[in-house]
Amino acid sequence: MEIHAKQVRPDSKNRADRARMLISCPDGPGIVAAVSHFLHQHGANIVQSDQYTMDPAGGMFFMRIEFDLPQLLVNLPKLEADFAEVASRFQMEWTLSAVSRKKKLAIFVSKEDHCLVELLWQWQAGDLDADIALVVSNHLDMKDYVESFGIPYHHIPVTADTKKEAEQRQLDVIGNDVDVIILARYMQIISPMFIEHYRNRIINIHHSFLPAFVGGKPYAQAYNRGVKIIGATAHYVTEELDGGPIIEQDVQRVSHGDDVTELKRIGRTIERVVLARAVKWHVEDRVLVHENKTVVF
Amino acid sequence: MEIHAKQVRPDSKNRADRARMLISCPDGPGIVAAVSHFLHQHGANIVQSDQYTMDPAGGMFFMRIEFDLPQLLVNLPKLEADFAEVASRFQMEWTLSAVSRKKKLAIFVSKEDHCLVELLWQWQAGDLDADIALVVSNHLDMKDYVESFGIPYHHIPVTADTKKEAEQRQLDVIGNDVDVIILARYMQIISPMFIEHYRNRIINIHHSFLPAFVGGKPYAQAYNRGVKIIGATAHYVTEELDGGPIIEQDVQRVSHGDDVTELKRIGRTIERVVLARAVKWHVEDRVLVHENKTVVF
Amino acid sequence: MEIHAKQVRPDSKNRADRARMLISCPDGPGIVAAVSHFLHQHGANIVQSDQYTMDPAGGMFFMRIEFDLPQLLVNLPKLEADFAEVASRFQMEWTLSAVSRKKKLAIFVSKEDHCLVELLWQWQAGDLDADIALVVSNHLDMKDYVESFGIPYHHIPVTADTKKEAEQRQLDVIGNDVDVIILARYMQIISPMFIEHYRNRIINIHHSFLPAFVGGKPYAQAYNRGVKIIGATAHYVTEELDGGPIIEQDVQRVSHGDDVTELKRIGRTIERVVLARAVKWHVEDRVLVHENKTVVF
Amino acid sequence: MEIHAKQVRPDSKNRADRARMLISCPDGPGIVAAVSHFLHQHGANIVQSDQYTMDPAGGMFFMRIEFDLPQLLVNLPKLEADFAEVASRFQMEWTLSAVSRKKKLAIFVSKEDHCLVELLWQWQAGDLDADIALVVSNHLDMKDYVESFGIPYHHIPVTADTKKEAEQRQLDVIGNDVDVIILARYMQIISPMFIEHYRNRIINIHHSFLPAFVGGKPYAQAYNRGVKIIGATAHYVTEELDGGPIIEQDVQRVSHGDDVTELKRIGRTIERVVLARAVKWHVEDRVLVHENKTVVF
Repeated sequence: MEIHAKQVRPDSKNRADRARMLISCPDGPGIVAAVSHFLHQHGANIVQSDQYTMDPAGGMFFMRIEFDLPQLLVNLPKLEADFAEVASRFQMEWTLSAVSRKKKLAIFVSKEDHCLVELLWQWQAGDLDADIALVVSNHLDMKDYVESFGIPYHHIPVTADTKKEAEQRQLDVIGNDVDVIILARYMQIISPMFIEHYRNRIINIHHSFLPAFVGGKPYAQAYNRGVKIIGATAHYVTEELDGGPIIEQDVQRVSHGDDVTELKRIGRTIERVVLARAVKWHVEDRVLVHENKTVVF
Repeated sequence: MEIHAKQVRPDSKNRADRARMLISCPDGPGIVAAVSHFLHQHGANIVQSDQYTMDPAGGMFFMRIEFDLPQLLVNLPKLEADFAEVASRFQMEWTLSAVSRKKKLAIFVSKEDHCLVELLWQWQAGDLDADIALVVSNHLDMKDYVESFGIPYHHIPVTADTKKEAEQRQLDVIGNDVDVIILARYMQIISPMFIEHYRNRIINIHHSFLPAFVGGKPYAQAYNRGVKIIGATAHYVTEELDGGPIIEQDVQRVSHGDDVTELKRIGRTIERVVLARAVKWHVEDRVLVHENKTVVF
Repeated sequence: MEIHAKQVRPDSKNRADRARMLISCPDGPGIVAAVSHFLHQHGANIVQSDQYTMDPAGGMFFMRIEFDLPQLLVNLPKLEADFAEVASRFQMEWTLSAVSRKKKLAIFVSKEDHCLVELLWQWQAGDLDADIALVVSNHLDMKDYVESFGIPYHHIPVTADTKKEAEQRQLDVIGNDVDVIILARYMQIISPMFIEHYRNRIINIHHSFLPAFVGGKPYAQAYNRGVKIIGATAHYVTEELDGGPIIEQDVQRVSHGDDVTELKRIGRTIERVVLARAVKWHVEDRVLVHENKTVVF
Repeated sequence: MEIHAKQVRPDSKNRADRARMLISCPDGPGIVAAVSHFLHQHGANIVQSDQYTMDPAGGMFFMRIEFDLPQLLVNLPKLEADFAEVASRFQMEWTLSAVSRKKKLAIFVSKEDHCLVELLWQWQAGDLDADIALVVSNHLDMKDYVESFGIPYHHIPVTADTKKEAEQRQLDVIGNDVDVIILARYMQIISPMFIEHYRNRIINIHHSFLPAFVGGKPYAQAYNRGVKIIGATAHYVTEELDGGPIIEQDVQRVSHGDDVTELKRIGRTIERVVLARAVKWHVEDRVLVHENKTVVF
């Protein structure tokens, strides 16, 4: 049985001529005018824009624009080349993506399957506008399941001794085409060397409401502390364990009657939902990172 | 004992040179460019903007901009005059407000005091950036309390026979300076004549999750239907009972053990919070109305 | 590829000697004393009990008890026989279930698969303590997927003309062993004849926050009304469309920017979660029905 | 202007003959039977009971019972005397309270008034079934406001040097009649000596989702960490700072656009609601403490 992702719906959000732009720069006068004037001159029609200034007096400026441009894929190279001048004038960091060019994901998983299953289901239902290029695991458990979707599964065991080589093999199988790596309950710490290759492009799901319960066994920690609400946190991976920029969090109420097994059960649904939202926002270019925080438009 | 609102905090959101602009118009190319170019030319610095297009092919376009302009109050008349040309070109409906000119509220109340008390507390705490010009009531219950804040209280009884005259008296005491009328559990139906004077400027709190439980005794209706969640809805008042554009809603979980008295008790807190949020958003120029719906930026 | 449900975890909630009792009766003095005395005399140890009285003066009394009894399966018949006397004295409606005897489910589905997939995943993960006896559908879409789990799939088309015969065929394939029928987005109205066979044992998921948006196309209705929160409702099916006793509801915040397609996408996750919770509570004997409302312990 | 609490509504929850019992003991067979038999024999009618066993094999057992007993206040002394035998048999810790005897509160406050205002409003609205015996503050800010309700206000300044004497003065003004002390944003650390007098009877509101952001300036900590949800926690005070048994928590979603000032504003409403719920549950005898956790019925 092979299951393929449904045709993406021909709705207004996935048109061939739709593009997205993300901009970060020091705030100053005239940025919105310059960008919108540039787009207008090039024949683009802005269909959505969001903007945020941390502090009008000397802070950072963040912007996300969705626009339609006739014959986008033909015109994109020139648009990018021309925009370099504007970007340089305002010291912008920026990206420009055609919506029709889907982001490519690599999903890492260990034994717990719920986050992987959720992402596959959303992808197969047409709700996750991305391609799943491959799955990497230090275990064999999910091999048959993943391959039944026609997705390559790479089994790369990891031990303390082989970690360096294992990570190199991971980088090799991922290749150069993957945009973002999803740690869907992948229970290995990622080394700084690996992180450096995918700075702000590795999304982890932590099974607690960070920064409460950093580290291992967060549900047991939550049970012992007697909290009345548990949560999950999707964040970009940095060198600091569970300390990277938070993309999304959500929570659910629990009671004294929920033991650790029940907290884990409730938590699995929160984890699935939170991770899927964070991945969706990332592949829709909604997340900007500044220092250790995110701006989510 | 007279209690006065605290000095508004000198934070970045309440500066003397800050203004807000709300724009609705048919979508088309060049709107953002034209507006941002106009503001840049006039020396304004955009500090936040939000934009929404209902449908890129022929829908409506909505925009909210916050900007800083040196010597705003001096320059505002010319800015408004000059903007008329841009507005006319794109068939815009628009408003332009100086943040330092606070909106004036009239609060209508009957006997239930919780929504009024919440608004007064938030105002007195400096959290509601508006002036409370007067309170109007068909009962005397809250007179002493309201006057202890130094706010005029107008007791205008309403009966079926005197409704027309009563509404005229209400309009008279309100005068011409009030920006928005808040029905803080005011248990009288407002006539079309009255509504016409304050189109999209009368905010009501309905004690249910609309459109469930339209009309009277919504908590009894909710109890009888056995819902597991109750809510409240803040909306602009139109000629259709409980049918106007929804500004904000919120909910809380209840159980079979909560009788009508308990639902009312739980509901009072939801009502207070939802109404206060809607009022805050209105006075911060965050709400645009289009047909029977709102855009909340 | 066949996937089987994991071994149920050997935790305290699934022990061989654990039983559950549900009781409804007119309130009166001595009920708790009589029941707990009875269980104590028979060697049972109560590990959890919940109780609710609608109105101490003449209302209904509801009770759920979990208890452990050594050699439960051997002793259950005598326990049931002996309890009949207590039950008769207080005019009780009651059930007594061994936890080790799992409830059997029949799942009905049409084309939308998300609720079915969720139930299968939770079952396969060991989180749904029930057996899925069969799946019935008026379409073929999910046949391969369901059969890959080793679960029988009965394709029974339904048209206006063949409805009566189709329902009879459904009853035939279900047989006499199924405890509860789950309508996992089954888009056919169930006839009173069918309902009568499974009174308070058919669970439907409605894709709105009932009683808002009864009937068809609730997400389009929600979009048109401009609500700020959408929801889903799991309820027992009665002869009144979308009018049966509500078991569970949940909601999520949406904004003006979410079109009908996006509301449906957000709603799918709410529907999955709400239906799965309602099914879990039903199979754990947590739900009592009284008139048109539920008591959920 | 003096405002008095409304007459408590004559609903079923506040009847003259209603009592509540809280029991903690090691689990074992026959406890429910013994207690319910005892009450039945003494003519009491159980109207609600909740029970929880941490672990059927050797854990703790917790129970809360509401019952009606004719001429309760006359019969209570004998009921208590007789129950001592049952309690002794099962090594119970227990309390028995007449609902008509309201708990007496002492509220401690510093300068931030929102939690105090909320409790006074709920009390005055008849929603808080307790008496407010006095308010203690290390500042004078709220004196007039509190006294306008006819409630004594004790101004007791605290400095590092005078802490010991100040706490002794606090104990003196509180006297022997106060059941529970509410720290409604009282910004002083309570000494172990003071805590010992009111073990599990001092409720604090911490302005974060504990155990995230223990200690000072939690909103600034939350802003710096970039969390997407903020919360508040009501807990009993122990010798460990912000480490005592959690009674209730709640949260609200925030965004990158909310600065520290805005987080504080949003947080004030969460704090008010969470503290008021915890106080309500405490005065309704719904909270049992075991080691560092609560059971909330």
